[in-house]
Amino acid sequence: MDASVAVKPYKKEFDYSYALGAFPTVELIKKRPEQVTEVLLHSTFTDRELIMSLCREHNIPVLENDKTIARLSDKENVFVIGVFRKYEDTLAADQPHLMLVNPGNMGNAGTIFRTCLAFGIHDVAIITPGIDRFHPKAVRASMGALFSLRVQCFPDFETYRKQYGTAERKLYSFMLTGKKQLTAENCPKPELFTLIFGNEATGLPEEYADFSESIIIPQSPEVDSLNLTIAVGIGAYLFRKV
Amino acid sequence: MDASVAVKPYKKEFDYSYALGAFPTVELIKKRPEQVTEVLLHSTFTDRELIMSLCREHNIPVLENDKTIARLSDKENVFVIGVFRKYEDTLAADQPHLMLVNPGNMGNAGTIFRTCLAFGIHDVAIITPGIDRFHPKAVRASMGALFSLRVQCFPDFETYRKQYGTAERKLYSFMLTGKKQLTAENCPKPELFTLIFGNEATGLPEEYADFSESIIIPQSPEVDSLNLTIAVGIGAYLFRKV
Repeated sequence: MDASVAVKPYKKEFDYSYALGAFPTVELIKKRPEQVTEVLLHSTFTDRELIMSLCREHNIPVLENDKTIARLSDKENVFVIGVFRKYEDTLAADQPHLMLVNPGNMGNAGTIFRTCLAFGIHDVAIITPGIDRFHPKAVRASMGALFSLRVQCFPDFETYRKQYGTAERKLYSFMLTGKKQLTAENCPKPELFTLIFGNEATGLPEEYADFSESIIIPQSPEVDSLNLTIAVGIGAYLFRKV
Repeated sequence: MDASVAVKPYKKEFDYSYALGAFPTVELIKKRPEQVTEVLLHSTFTDRELIMSLCREHNIPVLENDKTIARLSDKENVFVIGVFRKYEDTLAADQPHLMLVNPGNMGNAGTIFRTCLAFGIHDVAIITPGIDRFHPKAVRASMGALFSLRVQCFPDFETYRKQYGTAERKLYSFMLTGKKQLTAENCPKPELFTLIFGNEATGLPEEYADFSESIIIPQSPEVDSLNLTIAVGIGAYLFRKV
C-alpha cells in the first residue's frame, strides 16, 4: 500500500493492518520498522517525543488525522495508530514452539502472544483455519508482543511436522483426556519442545494424543475446562526458559 | 422483582441480573435455585430436557420470549436466559481467598471466577471500586462459575483484614516490584492464605507490600507485565488445593 492512500477499517484480505494505541505502535516500530508505512497521531495526543524520534530514525511518515483515527478505532480511546504491511515469518527450528490448533478468538490469541513472550517462547505455530493474527483486535490484545514473535501458519499438523519435527523436539498436547497430570514437580524439562493447544470450544482432536505426550493441567471437576489463555499461561510458565 | 415484569437490558442499579446462555443458566439453577425468578427460552431452542426438569424441580417459571432474548443478548447467539435476584455472600473464614483490588474488566473478572473454581478457591474478595460481579458480561465470562463461589465486596483492605485477618492466614501480594520470584519449587504451601491481585492497568498500590509477602511471577523484560488473568491463573495453580 501507498502511505498516501487512505487507511480503511480492517478487512482480512488487505495487505496491511494497523496497531491501535501508543504502546503497541512503539513495539511495532521498534521490532518491525521496515514494515511500517505510516503513523497516525490524534491532534490531542501530547506525549509525542518517543514516537516522533522513532519515526524520524526509521523514516516513517507521521500524519495527524483525527477522522481516520476515529473511524479505525471503533469505540475505543485511541490516539496513535501504526499502519504496517503484513509479513510472513519462519519459525526458528532450534527454539521451543507454542502451537495453536484452530484458535477461534482474537483477544485470546493476542493474550497468548503476550504470554509466550513473557515466558521466553518466541515462536508460535498456527494450524489453520484459525484467527487472523494481524487483525487489529489480536494485535491490540497482544500489546504489540506479536511483533517480537515469529508466527507461522500451517494447513495441518503434518506440514508442520515435516518442517520442524525432529527426534530432539518433544511434543506435548494439552487435552482434557490427557494421560499425565502436569504438576510443577513432574513437568518435563526438555531443551526443545512444542506445546500444543486446541480450539477454545472444541479442544484438540483426539488424534494428537497418538503422536505426542498428552497432558492435562489438574483442575476441579466443578468446571468444564480452563479458559484457553489460562491453560497456555500455566503451560508456558511451567516449561519456561526465563 | 416480579416474574411478570418485563426483564430489561441490565443496569447496575437493578436488583436483578441474568445469565446469558444455557450452560451458565444451568449452573445458576443448580447452585442458586432460590434466587432464580424465571428462565427465558428462545422458540428455536430444542435441547430443553435438562433445563425444563431443573425448573420443574425448583418451581421456576419458564417463558418463551424471543423478543426479550434478542433485546438482552445484544449481538451474541443466546437461546436461554436465566433471570435471578442479586444476593450477598459472606466469605468462609477457614478457606483460602483470592482478592481482587479494584478490578476493571468484566470479562477478566469472569475468567478469574472460573479459574478460582478450577483450582479449588471458592472465596473471592473484591476491594471496591471495581467491576460489578453481577453484570451479565462477568456472569457469562465465568461460564456460571460465579454461582459456585462466595464473593464479598469490601470498601478497603482494612475492612477485609478486620473480618478475616488472623495469624494463620498468610497474605501474598502479586506485584511487579515483588521481592520473591515465585517458582514451582519455592511456592509456599500454607493451609490458609489470601492471594492478592491489583487492577489491570495500575497493579497493586505499593503499600500492600508492607502488610503481606510481595511476590512476582518470573517474566521476561520483553513484556511490561503479564495479563491479569494469566497472573491469577498461575498463582491459583501453584497454590491450588485440587
